[in-house]
Amino acid sequence: MNRVDTLLTGGIVVTMNQNYDVFPDGAIAIQDSRIVAVGPTSEIVAQYEASDILDCSGQVLIPGLVNAHTHIPMTLLRGLVDDLRLDVWLMGYMMPVEREFVSPEFCYTGSLLAAAEMIRGGTTCIADMYYFESDVARALAEAGMRGVLGQTVLKFPSPDAASYEDSLAYTRQFIEEWRDHPLITPAVAPHAPYSNTPDTLKASTDLALEYDVPLLTHIAETRLEVEDSRRDHDMPVVPYVEGLGLLEAKVLAAHCVHVDTDEMRIMHRHNTHVAHNPTSNLKLASGIAPINEMLERGLVVGIGTDGTASNNDLDMFDEMRLAAFLAKGATGDPTALPARQALAMATRMGAEALFLGEVTGSLEPGKQADIITLDHMPLHNFPHFKRDPDAIYSQIVYAAKSTDVTNVMVDGRWLMRDRALLTIDEAAIRAASDQYARQIDAFLTAREGNILSKLVAIGGLEQEESFEIQAKAHLATRPDIPGLLLDHRDVQLVRHTHYRQYDTYFQFQDPNQGRVRYREDDAVDDRGEVASVRSRLTYTMPTKEREFSNAVLLSRSQFIAPADRPLRFYQEYFQPDTEHTVQKERQRWHILYKGILFYINLDELHVPREAGYFLEVKSRTWSARDAEYKAELASEIMALLGISPEQVVHTEYVELADS
Amino acid sequence: MNRVDTLLTGGIVVTMNQNYDVFPDGAIAIQDSRIVAVGPTSEIVAQYEASDILDCSGQVLIPGLVNAHTHIPMTLLRGLVDDLRLDVWLMGYMMPVEREFVSPEFCYTGSLLAAAEMIRGGTTCIADMYYFESDVARALAEAGMRGVLGQTVLKFPSPDAASYEDSLAYTRQFIEEWRDHPLITPAVAPHAPYSNTPDTLKASTDLALEYDVPLLTHIAETRLEVEDSRRDHDMPVVPYVEGLGLLEAKVLAAHCVHVDTDEMRIMHRHNTHVAHNPTSNLKLASGIAPINEMLERGLVVGIGTDGTASNNDLDMFDEMRLAAFLAKGATGDPTALPARQALAMATRMGAEALFLGEVTGSLEPGKQADIITLDHMPLHNFPHFKRDPDAIYSQIVYAAKSTDVTNVMVDGRWLMRDRALLTIDEAAIRAASDQYARQIDAFLTAREGNILSKLVAIGGLEQEESFEIQAKAHLATRPDIPGLLLDHRDVQLVRHTHYRQYDTYFQFQDPNQGRVRYREDDAVDDRGEVASVRSRLTYTMPTKEREFSNAVLLSRSQFIAPADRPLRFYQEYFQPDTEHTVQKERQRWHILYKGILFYINLDELHVPREAGYFLEVKSRTWSARDAEYKAELASEIMALLGISPEQVVHTEYVELADS
Repeated sequence: MNRVDTLLTGGIVVTMNQNYDVFPDGAIAIQDSRIVAVGPTSEIVAQYEASDILDCSGQVLIPGLVNAHTHIPMTLLRGLVDDLRLDVWLMGYMMPVEREFVSPEFCYTGSLLAAAEMIRGGTTCIADMYYFESDVARALAEAGMRGVLGQTVLKFPSPDAASYEDSLAYTRQFIEEWRDHPLITPAVAPHAPYSNTPDTLKASTDLALEYDVPLLTHIAETRLEVEDSRRDHDMPVVPYVEGLGLLEAKVLAAHCVHVDTDEMRIMHRHNTHVAHNPTSNLKLASGIAPINEMLERGLVVGIGTDGTASNNDLDMFDEMRLAAFLAKGATGDPTALPARQALAMATRMGAEALFLGEVTGSLEPGKQADIITLDHMPLHNFPHFKRDPDAIYSQIVYAAKSTDVTNVMVDGRWLMRDRALLTIDEAAIRAASDQYARQIDAFLTAREGNILSKLVAIGGLEQEESFEIQAKAHLATRPDIPGLLLDHRDVQLVRHTHYRQYDTYFQFQDPNQGRVRYREDDAVDDRGEVASVRSRLTYTMPTKEREFSNAVLLSRSQFIAPADRPLRFYQEYFQPDTEHTVQKERQRWHILYKGILFYINLDELHVPREAGYFLEVKSRTWSARDAEYKAELASEIMALLGISPEQVVHTEYVELADS
Repeated sequence: MNRVDTLLTGGIVVTMNQNYDVFPDGAIAIQDSRIVAVGPTSEIVAQYEASDILDCSGQVLIPGLVNAHTHIPMTLLRGLVDDLRLDVWLMGYMMPVEREFVSPEFCYTGSLLAAAEMIRGGTTCIADMYYFESDVARALAEAGMRGVLGQTVLKFPSPDAASYEDSLAYTRQFIEEWRDHPLITPAVAPHAPYSNTPDTLKASTDLALEYDVPLLTHIAETRLEVEDSRRDHDMPVVPYVEGLGLLEAKVLAAHCVHVDTDEMRIMHRHNTHVAHNPTSNLKLASGIAPINEMLERGLVVGIGTDGTASNNDLDMFDEMRLAAFLAKGATGDPTALPARQALAMATRMGAEALFLGEVTGSLEPGKQADIITLDHMPLHNFPHFKRDPDAIYSQIVYAAKSTDVTNVMVDGRWLMRDRALLTIDEAAIRAASDQYARQIDAFLTAREGNILSKLVAIGGLEQEESFEIQAKAHLATRPDIPGLLLDHRDVQLVRHTHYRQYDTYFQFQDPNQGRVRYREDDAVDDRGEVASVRSRLTYTMPTKEREFSNAVLLSRSQFIAPADRPLRFYQEYFQPDTEHTVQKERQRWHILYKGILFYINLDELHVPREAGYFLEVKSRTWSARDAEYKAELASEIMALLGISPEQVVHTEYVELADS
């Protein structure tokens, strides 16, 4: 007899190995963190003995479920707002709340809340992407779960990084910290191609390759994303990221709702894995991913819940079932994605998707002991047909519920026994999470009528590059911009435009509200006639400034939206405390200076009437380091234009205006 | 103080009344079977006292859920087979198993199994359609649930009726028996337009109008159904049934996946209600019903699970959630079908869909006390945001699970307290339902290799009208069919055809296997040339015959399928014990006799060679009474043709053949 730590006996053992072996009266022997034997109970008990023997009669034993895509700290935001337009939901609620509340503590608490729900529901392994991923790792490791945890990289400032350079530095540190942990696999997670620059995508790839860790990202989640990619890069999303070298890494791409056959071929060639999120894709109205074709083409596809903000749970039983049913509905073929295949995607193939195929995902000797047991006796899973060997998969995928999970083991350690959590204090988590809810409720109530939320509500809002570089001078006489600038060897003219601009600024007593500008841009042609008119709103958040020599570096968030309604509407809608009018004639040169795009504005101010001319050198960027570099270049341009320090002004036009 | 039977206090009361009132610390007073008061706990306890007081703190109180379309006895077939093609699933498994097993006892047991699951999951009221509906009613009444129960009417024989006349008679008796029950509303359920004749649809409508009971049916579930309706009736399904007067009844139409805007207008005009079945429509790959447009047009739409064979559960929480998410996914609009509206469809609007809007579906004084409580404290429903008044609906629809239901009351009676069922013996149901599973497993195992199941597996099978009328004579000389028949005032020629028919009959030692005929039909044109060739298989089940005068009335089931593979394939596939060959030359006149379609066949038998001519008068029908009438007409035609009794033969051609 061999002595082992634990024996699970007398259950229906559904191994999910390559042969799909099922032992109707089966047993599993576990030593340390690993499975050492799986087979009929009679054979196993004849070979092994243990002090911890769990009688699993009336239970089904399956591999712990693998959630291939989620954002677990967001569990704290479950049910915050639902059923809204995507831009309203994201920019009106998610982003402001995340900006205000997401902290290491938030991520730790949210991760524990999620872990409790996931363990109860039989999930033992996840792929996560969020901020402060080191605190997610801390919570997950404490809870005893397995995870591939991706630290988010974004081009704009995020709750855990003021710039993307900080984000990349944090990610490196995170990988160093967790790379040797038995349960945690650190990963790099550039959020999505559209929310990154080519530079950040390349840097993320380099980091993933350097440490040989997975790279998690969102690919082609919405139709708009694909349209934007075609507009900006002349190609859909997958060839774009392929061109940047991103697919050289071990990539797990979430969503992939709008990928075409050519893109699937590219993904297959690079062994890019996919996380399918059926609930989230329906709830956010993103579409239905072509999972059947992906599977037919041999892609590795796991199943994920996505975050609870777009689900609203972490229930992998719900998710498997919907994956199977949606595949049938989408193809018109009721044989598509049968129950056994859906369970494989949530277990063995899911583990493979996370690049953990050698570690977990099936019940076979040599794999880590990640095992769950399901109560097979609830009436919602009766009767039990046995003639068809696939009947057990139908019972697990189509009829079992996450609440049928009774015992959960990860890495040979019990995390739940008889439905009691062994690693998490549920009462403490309940209290901590409801305390966050009270604070968030109060924050959102306080900002009712807040300008950004009002702006978001009318739609079309986009966030601009987060750093603005601006240098400005007041000149008594008209400078000869073309003469001074355009012949210089470092300068290249891109375009010259001429506008008459009619601005109305809405300001508010509370300076934290920021301000809104309604601008009508009349483009003037060569004959001095108005050729086209465009109106838009710009929302500027309260400003933080930093000054470099004679250029000003402004670090501030701006949002722009088309203004498709008359000024009077916006006046009534925003009810500003004061209004200011600015009218000016603007000549604008779009130039490349040392290859970098700058705008040179030459303005004559009509309202308020100011003598002379205002000269502006402007640029924007997502990167803090890039902003510093551009500030230097802006100073150089000012010098080329012959601006002396005493001509430099820091006044904005609106500050000159009367209310 | 007013004395009442029961007080529920201190819970979050979500009334689902017209104002969508929510009492965050609310109470309900119940006297006899009705709600007498709903409001803040402080107000209710100041006015009412009771001996049964349930403290509902930490619980949410909502109206009992209404499942608008199901077939509860089929719960005994949950997981029998899944992931198959529709024809294979239906004709290979569901129909044979139903034919063999569906009995009053089956329906009673299956209904109790379903009731246990439904009560546990918070469903208190259903619309059901099945066979032996009186036994469904008996089970449901014992369990204490409310239901609109529709007795099925079909044109073909069903487990509870040898003919549709029997079915209509049974339905009348069922209505008489249950019409005064406080919980049960009997209803007429013509299964679907395509599975009924115009006569049975009209008779069902008359019955519904005579007793003022609802009429339940399936409408436009599949695209094929609509195509067939256009082919056969030159219009889609809804105008077809409108033309038959069916929409004059109180109609609850299940599915309505493929209805267009005009059809929605017709349904709205007739106040036709809809049962939406999102899971079933995905699982069977039927499509996605245009629920948003229906709701915008003011149609009353409930939500149903359908039977467990196409779901595989009776979980209304799953169903509400999917209804909401699928509506968003299908329209590309994440604001479509918000949580509050989904809950309304499963409660107040669902009750209205069942024509029980005055009785149940909301928590308000005067309605019957159909109330469920949900545990609001599981971690899968944390945290609890409260700022947004719609947050509670999101928590109920998007995060709560059916297993959160703790207490269930119907008609003022407790059916479940603290998750213990009070009206159903679960252990007994478990045993009884698994016993059925063992018998059904054995039945299906025994018929492995069964001819019908093999035929079903190769696809394209259709069931023919169930009654065949045939009169046959052997004549020494060639009769002048046109001369004898076509000038008669009661006869009208529809078409004349001429075939050479090459038949191979497959027969089996076990007579219960029935027989298969492979026929090649060579259509011959005026010049005696073969104009077209068609091959098909006909499966004839073991025959029961009844004889009328000189015509034979055959009551037997036939199935036909196109034979798109060569004879050799079918020989190897079916492996018959004996084969017989029949070849003949057939002249066929399609005539109307007294307005009824008959085929007159004049056959010369080449193999086996028989002298003289065989004359056949044939017709088919779904109706037993119609079969008797047609048998009389067939005798009259035989008389017109001058056939004497001694010329009549009862031999089939295959019986003449050598093996």
